[in-house]
Amino acid sequence: MNGGLDTDYEPIAAALAARDADAFVHVGDRFDDDLRYLTRFSGPDRQYAFVYREDEALLTAPSLFAEQAEREFPGTVVPAGDGPRKPAAERAALLLGSESLVLVPPHLPHESAVRLERAGHELLSTTVVSETRAVKSEAEIDRLRWVQGATMEGMRRAEAVLAEATVSGESVLWAGERLTTERLRREVNAAFASEGLTDAGNTVIGAGPSCADLHFTGDAVIEPGETVLLDLSPRGPDGYYGDCSRTFVVESEGGWERRAHVAVERAQDAAFDALSSGAGTAANEVHREAAAEIGAYGFSPTGEPGFTHGIGHGVGVSLHEAPSMRSPEALEAGMVLTIEPGVYDRERGGVRIEDLVLVTEGGYEVLGEYHRSLVPRPE
Amino acid sequence: MNGGLDTDYEPIAAALAARDADAFVHVGDRFDDDLRYLTRFSGPDRQYAFVYREDEALLTAPSLFAEQAEREFPGTVVPAGDGPRKPAAERAALLLGSESLVLVPPHLPHESAVRLERAGHELLSTTVVSETRAVKSEAEIDRLRWVQGATMEGMRRAEAVLAEATVSGESVLWAGERLTTERLRREVNAAFASEGLTDAGNTVIGAGPSCADLHFTGDAVIEPGETVLLDLSPRGPDGYYGDCSRTFVVESEGGWERRAHVAVERAQDAAFDALSSGAGTAANEVHREAAAEIGAYGFSPTGEPGFTHGIGHGVGVSLHEAPSMRSPEALEAGMVLTIEPGVYDRERGGVRIEDLVLVTEGGYEVLGEYHRSLVPRPE
Repeated sequence: MNGGLDTDYEPIAAALAARDADAFVHVGDRFDDDLRYLTRFSGPDRQYAFVYREDEALLTAPSLFAEQAEREFPGTVVPAGDGPRKPAAERAALLLGSESLVLVPPHLPHESAVRLERAGHELLSTTVVSETRAVKSEAEIDRLRWVQGATMEGMRRAEAVLAEATVSGESVLWAGERLTTERLRREVNAAFASEGLTDAGNTVIGAGPSCADLHFTGDAVIEPGETVLLDLSPRGPDGYYGDCSRTFVVESEGGWERRAHVAVERAQDAAFDALSSGAGTAANEVHREAAAEIGAYGFSPTGEPGFTHGIGHGVGVSLHEAPSMRSPEALEAGMVLTIEPGVYDRERGGVRIEDLVLVTEGGYEVLGEYHRSLVPRPE
Repeated sequence: MNGGLDTDYEPIAAALAARDADAFVHVGDRFDDDLRYLTRFSGPDRQYAFVYREDEALLTAPSLFAEQAEREFPGTVVPAGDGPRKPAAERAALLLGSESLVLVPPHLPHESAVRLERAGHELLSTTVVSETRAVKSEAEIDRLRWVQGATMEGMRRAEAVLAEATVSGESVLWAGERLTTERLRREVNAAFASEGLTDAGNTVIGAGPSCADLHFTGDAVIEPGETVLLDLSPRGPDGYYGDCSRTFVVESEGGWERRAHVAVERAQDAAFDALSSGAGTAANEVHREAAAEIGAYGFSPTGEPGFTHGIGHGVGVSLHEAPSMRSPEALEAGMVLTIEPGVYDRERGGVRIEDLVLVTEGGYEVLGEYHRSLVPRPE
């Protein structure tokens, strides 16, 4: 067991009861986040199955991975047994009664669905897992708090490099060379590794025009006076993601980027204000308030030059998960969201500021604190 | 386009012709390795679709990711258009003629299959993508060579730490503290980040008994005289994995671990010998020769204490992919395999040595060179 990081299977039991179904089954590999949530198993890149039936959670351990499954899965590990390897869906089918009614997530592999159906079971699609994942337990919030803190260590490293960098003519120099987004990314990712983060994943760093390309992971020379946008979203060893963005300029001359940065700060504050009564706030209201503030500063609230994306998304064992912030539905206590307004202009650059917040009964809590300064000045 | 890293769609065209089918479709997200191979798109964690029809490769760009798709995908990017988001399978269906016969991989999401069928298309399962992936192009081999070189920089860092470590009584000390597998992992992962590797993923490091747990990623104190097994498999920015294992002992007193290390070295040599005529060698012959050598040294060739797993696996955009080394089928030129014999005894520890080899017409080539020494002694 992963130090108290188990999973509440009650919503699955309730979904089974509500639809008069016998079992829940999912099949996938270590890259399937529903399966990661259900099992806490960091398993291999080949398929295994999770089965929930008669109030019992079962995992078909892939051969050579039984010990790891025992260590990580809070339920009962079903060993592979001897003989040739069976497909995971066949092993799952053996754990069901005959002709069961089975709930499955929409992204169950098609071949697994066919195998379950051929074994005589009837399948019904359910979104109970993604819905359940949207509201975090205390143990999950602890993990998110930890990974967000470690994410900020990467930001601190980047800001320190940018503060140390010097300008010579048209060049930004650091450690004797022209500084590039790739050089900066390696420093950030090394800081992540030192903190114990396992997947640096997409460390997005844009410089000037490439900031408007929202997920730039290429190599670009950093020039004096242009925006350097860092969007850091590494994954911790338990599978939870951090997500934090800041924008800096080496030798800002003010002007566009300063105006954009103020607009984005105010937009983030407006989003926080919209969240101040916490649970019950309509998700899209948070977006609307932030977009209006961006509009008030003379940028477009719906496109370029201005705010080209949504205010945020849920974060958990997926980087992007429920709730949707485009939805009019009420946010619930325990949801963890990014609040990330931005302003982009592909001629000039882009500014984004992003923090992670926990929705509470009466308000919200920002997970981790990191100052918002356009000028790199490590504290 | 990713610097010449395109994908040969000829095998898909041939599969369509052979089965008189109209199109190939796959739907998935950035964690689907078939899709990564087909598109080279490092896209988001929500679904997008690849369609191949009439000799044309198409990618439905997720909204906000069109620029990244244009940069990475060698075919034609189909923009999302305005209006509410459509499921990727629906967008794919619109790119097909009416009532097409469509080839799909077995792990197509079940919901996507249902959507395609509801749109009037008939689906047939194909394994053409995983089969094609087993044989690498020159551009892919370049990527694998690069990532394996970077992987060895992580090993060099680990070996340097172990060589610097000192023994005091029953403790191994480094940088003023007792050395643990987690501390060593952070050093390795930081070295990976500095090399430009993006996903450290599972950096497996066992110490003593935890070496027998083949994928140990937990924290264990490293004791003098016990085996420290490192299995390093990071991913490069183009999606290709490296894979290298070595085993060291701080202050070995000889005995079990030295005998095991010699057996494993000889087993790896026997596997290399079995590969010396290159393409045409039966995959399972390579395993058999290595296992026999381990048996000749007095360890079990099929279990504990001895060789508890297979000789290796294919490596590419998945860490584990075709070919299977349990199969009697002939290896082909361009396949890239791990050769990783090991000996384990859960009372004493474990030894594994692993390199990546390219099968050629007349032999094989080891990708990257790293010495095999039980005693840490950086070169």
